[in-house]
Amino acid sequence: MPDKFVSRRNLEFLLYEVNKLEELSALPYFADHTRETYDLVVDTALKLARNLIYPYFREMDEKAPYLENGEVKVHPAVKTMMKEWGEGGWISSSMPYDVGGQQLPITLHMLCNYIFAAANFAATGFPGLTTGAAHLILSYGADELKETYVPQMLAGEWQGTMALTEPQAGSSLADIVTTAYPTEDGYYKIKGQKIFISAGDHDGVENVIHMMLAKIKGAPAGIKGISLFLVPKKRFGDSGALVSNDVTVATVYHKMGYRGCPITQLSMGENDDCRGYLVGEPHKGLSYMFQMMNEARIGVGMQATAIATAAYYTSLEYAKERPQGRRLTSKDPTVPPVPIIEHADVRRMLLFQRATTEGSLAIILQCAMYTDLARTEDLEQRKRYDLLLDLLTPIAKTYGAETGIISVSQGLQILGGYGYCQEFPMEQYFRDIRIHTIHEGTTGIQGMDLLGRKVIMKNGEAMRIYIAEVEKAIQEAGKYEELKPYGDRLKAALEQLQNVTLFRIQFALKGEVEEFLADATLYLEFFGIIAVAWQWLLQGIAAQKGLKSNGSDLENSFYKGKLHTMKYFFHYELPRIQGLAARLMEADGLTVDTNNPVFED
Amino acid sequence: MPDKFVSRRNLEFLLYEVNKLEELSALPYFADHTRETYDLVVDTALKLARNLIYPYFREMDEKAPYLENGEVKVHPAVKTMMKEWGEGGWISSSMPYDVGGQQLPITLHMLCNYIFAAANFAATGFPGLTTGAAHLILSYGADELKETYVPQMLAGEWQGTMALTEPQAGSSLADIVTTAYPTEDGYYKIKGQKIFISAGDHDGVENVIHMMLAKIKGAPAGIKGISLFLVPKKRFGDSGALVSNDVTVATVYHKMGYRGCPITQLSMGENDDCRGYLVGEPHKGLSYMFQMMNEARIGVGMQATAIATAAYYTSLEYAKERPQGRRLTSKDPTVPPVPIIEHADVRRMLLFQRATTEGSLAIILQCAMYTDLARTEDLEQRKRYDLLLDLLTPIAKTYGAETGIISVSQGLQILGGYGYCQEFPMEQYFRDIRIHTIHEGTTGIQGMDLLGRKVIMKNGEAMRIYIAEVEKAIQEAGKYEELKPYGDRLKAALEQLQNVTLFRIQFALKGEVEEFLADATLYLEFFGIIAVAWQWLLQGIAAQKGLKSNGSDLENSFYKGKLHTMKYFFHYELPRIQGLAARLMEADGLTVDTNNPVFED
Repeated sequence: MPDKFVSRRNLEFLLYEVNKLEELSALPYFADHTRETYDLVVDTALKLARNLIYPYFREMDEKAPYLENGEVKVHPAVKTMMKEWGEGGWISSSMPYDVGGQQLPITLHMLCNYIFAAANFAATGFPGLTTGAAHLILSYGADELKETYVPQMLAGEWQGTMALTEPQAGSSLADIVTTAYPTEDGYYKIKGQKIFISAGDHDGVENVIHMMLAKIKGAPAGIKGISLFLVPKKRFGDSGALVSNDVTVATVYHKMGYRGCPITQLSMGENDDCRGYLVGEPHKGLSYMFQMMNEARIGVGMQATAIATAAYYTSLEYAKERPQGRRLTSKDPTVPPVPIIEHADVRRMLLFQRATTEGSLAIILQCAMYTDLARTEDLEQRKRYDLLLDLLTPIAKTYGAETGIISVSQGLQILGGYGYCQEFPMEQYFRDIRIHTIHEGTTGIQGMDLLGRKVIMKNGEAMRIYIAEVEKAIQEAGKYEELKPYGDRLKAALEQLQNVTLFRIQFALKGEVEEFLADATLYLEFFGIIAVAWQWLLQGIAAQKGLKSNGSDLENSFYKGKLHTMKYFFHYELPRIQGLAARLMEADGLTVDTNNPVFED
Repeated sequence: MPDKFVSRRNLEFLLYEVNKLEELSALPYFADHTRETYDLVVDTALKLARNLIYPYFREMDEKAPYLENGEVKVHPAVKTMMKEWGEGGWISSSMPYDVGGQQLPITLHMLCNYIFAAANFAATGFPGLTTGAAHLILSYGADELKETYVPQMLAGEWQGTMALTEPQAGSSLADIVTTAYPTEDGYYKIKGQKIFISAGDHDGVENVIHMMLAKIKGAPAGIKGISLFLVPKKRFGDSGALVSNDVTVATVYHKMGYRGCPITQLSMGENDDCRGYLVGEPHKGLSYMFQMMNEARIGVGMQATAIATAAYYTSLEYAKERPQGRRLTSKDPTVPPVPIIEHADVRRMLLFQRATTEGSLAIILQCAMYTDLARTEDLEQRKRYDLLLDLLTPIAKTYGAETGIISVSQGLQILGGYGYCQEFPMEQYFRDIRIHTIHEGTTGIQGMDLLGRKVIMKNGEAMRIYIAEVEKAIQEAGKYEELKPYGDRLKAALEQLQNVTLFRIQFALKGEVEEFLADATLYLEFFGIIAVAWQWLLQGIAAQKGLKSNGSDLENSFYKGKLHTMKYFFHYELPRIQGLAARLMEADGLTVDTNNPVFED
């Protein structure tokens, strides 16, 4: 296993130089914190990741969960980790003091989870889902639910999950049929099936708390009839002891990767004794669930980015150490071979990995910063941050996931045949990362969310605010001679973004909704590249500010590396928007027209 | 397991409508054959694939080879298959009558292997390598070697391999150190290590014949000192019985995919008793080996395309059967959901799969046709075909491999969460296909081969001939109203290809060889897309010819589907050259300059 899986220096750069994390202290919620607190948290997370989480990366893949006597058995390390994450306050770190949290920024919480996921992605499914589920109960649950369930979740003793998908209802939640039957005792009786439930059951915790979508008997059809329930694996019986709540594990799926975390099929109410507790009001479940889903979506982008980061450092270490071939300018076979990092094509692949993962992490932290900044009491500003977050969520999720897959694949390529063998970690990264374009809304769903909802919402207000943000960065870049050409490139790209957006929207205005969204996935890819170019320009500006004529060689070297990687992004990645724009400015119904016998032979 | 893994109709289309396989009979070598022969061979291959090979697709992955008592144990089905491939004449089908072959076209041989690889890629490593190794012995070996080794190989009783890579010499064959010591008895004593040897040992055959690169003691440094040896696992002892030849299996690698076929590390001469037999002249080994390597490269592109084809039919079947969601024009949740093939984004992914795999297969068969056509006695024509084959080999290998990975990934995406689970075959396709950009020369090596050798060889003669070929297709397309716009698009792309090529070559002329080749991988991708667009235009022409006003609905539907897929390629894939051209027309040394501290932090 390589020694390095994240760069502390890069985290500092993003937290304090690109973003200004310490300035959050101006907001009352974060008033107690200083940079010292944040640094300590990051250092502790790094230590925990290295000492407790990274060592099980491989073993949790090899010893995958299995079903025994109706319970899922996970690697014993999961129990230790959950205890540590609970006791160390990692699950609740961003939550308010009054529930035992530390009121730390979401940005910092996200960053720590990124460190953990880079060390061992499968392990982070457990705490991540628990944080999200507890947050959902705290946001919308009755006090009794909060008191009964949240403390044990935040302590890492109980697992949280999100239980949405059903055999017949994956991307289309409108079609869920899990049913909640009202009783006179206040609770509901739940009957139904849920599939693909991550951490849906395991013996690393005492109990599992499902945040479950179901329809109250007689509810309206479609998404307007969906309610949110808290459905525990075990509930408190009359004696006060935990008793079974009639939630049965039907299956543990055998997955290509992400094997350390069980994904389960659950059956509720086989003995007519599964109790669910309504969260919030009836029929509003999907809108509540979107809180957890949106957090999870950015989390997915972050996890994919974390895997791609670890893969980057694996291939970087290999490329520095593996001698092979000679520079093209020196083909004398009697001189010793050079490390492969000397070869332009290997450097190109490494730069691709670095540029995409660091760009992706930047946009994820940008989203997290918007969440934290939205704690302002200035309502106008809050709206601004909320809109930016809404707009960028599908991009942060998908850029990380889609580009992460290619990035890990490039890293595997650098290791050649070894990359394909289980003796090296790359093949696991390649298997692990592939889930991220699927769960928490497929890439196709994200594309429709971006173009079909976010871009046009409030008459395009989010889009206008976003464009102003990018223009601000371009303007600032113009102050630096080295950055101006890149600002100009981004300006041209931003114009293309506006042109393409207007072109697509005209179909919406004409009511041709299928044509409008036919290439929404490509639009998302197109937008994502431009958004990450913006983040690279911001990083370029921060690097320019950091470069000092009297700075240390080490520090200046870091900033120069950042500027070089930024240039790579603009010269190699940004041009890809040309082909996408060319396609997006066409409309020919090639994928819409179903009368054509395209697939038969 | 889905029922379908290849389309017979598409194979017919490519063999007889796009290409004219039956016209090969004009050449003496193929004089005995007619379309009836070819059809019979294809039908038999399909039957064999379905009945014997496809059923073990999954099981050979699950029960991977292992080392026991110094021998590699493979799935018992391998023995049955090798016997069948041997006895049925599949290993030798394209070879001359005098060695027991059937003098069938390489095109047909390639197509049958494509059928087998679509059924079960890992199984086809065994016969494929045996054909290549036997062909190498027949081309360059002494009569005694031919007589002693080839018959058992063609009978499927003995395995052939290519043994090039060593621990310190992967992409850089110049650095091999396996040494051959001359003896007075005519043979050489071999000492050394070879790694990543596919089918390097197994109990499905009686013997394994390694075509091995080694350096004769005292040979010149680098590739000019490489010789080719035949090194058997067992040699004939004095008594005439097979005895050990001191080739030891050190390791069987544990791979992410391609698990049915063992990849081994071999150690030669641990007891100073490993005999190797020189093939051809000393120090010319690499030039001989290129025969097998070039065949294997096209074979790799073919295998990747075969996997991607099988994946396409898996996702197509799923997309037709899986109900989910509603058309965007009908969001009423009370109407039943539609099969996901109705959704534009799913159709886009399916069309991507179809357009790239059928385009890839077309260019592979084009290469095979050039090999067959080169049997002409017209030396000028032969040179033409040889040059076209040389030029297109790195493209056929890499387009199939690189695009195949993305294509399978899109197919997996169509299955959603199920695609990630071992209960469906997609995840195995995803694991299996990933090796193809690595073995038989990585993508980086292919890029340098294309731009650094093939494009400039003989002052660009291959390139000129190729451009004329494409122009011919454009001209013919101009005769059809529906095709003319696509001919025009290809014409513009061809001009870009020429401009980009000239731009890169100027660096070679200035002696800036690193800048010349810095983006050779991107150049290969760029050229590959244009080459496949050419193949799609040829398919479009054939489809136009096939469309008949009095044709059957079924037949016309096939041709319309082809035309639709061609349009997809031109509207969605060809535009990707814009971004690549933009990058390739820049030269800034971003990946060449190693003074920049790019990767440190």
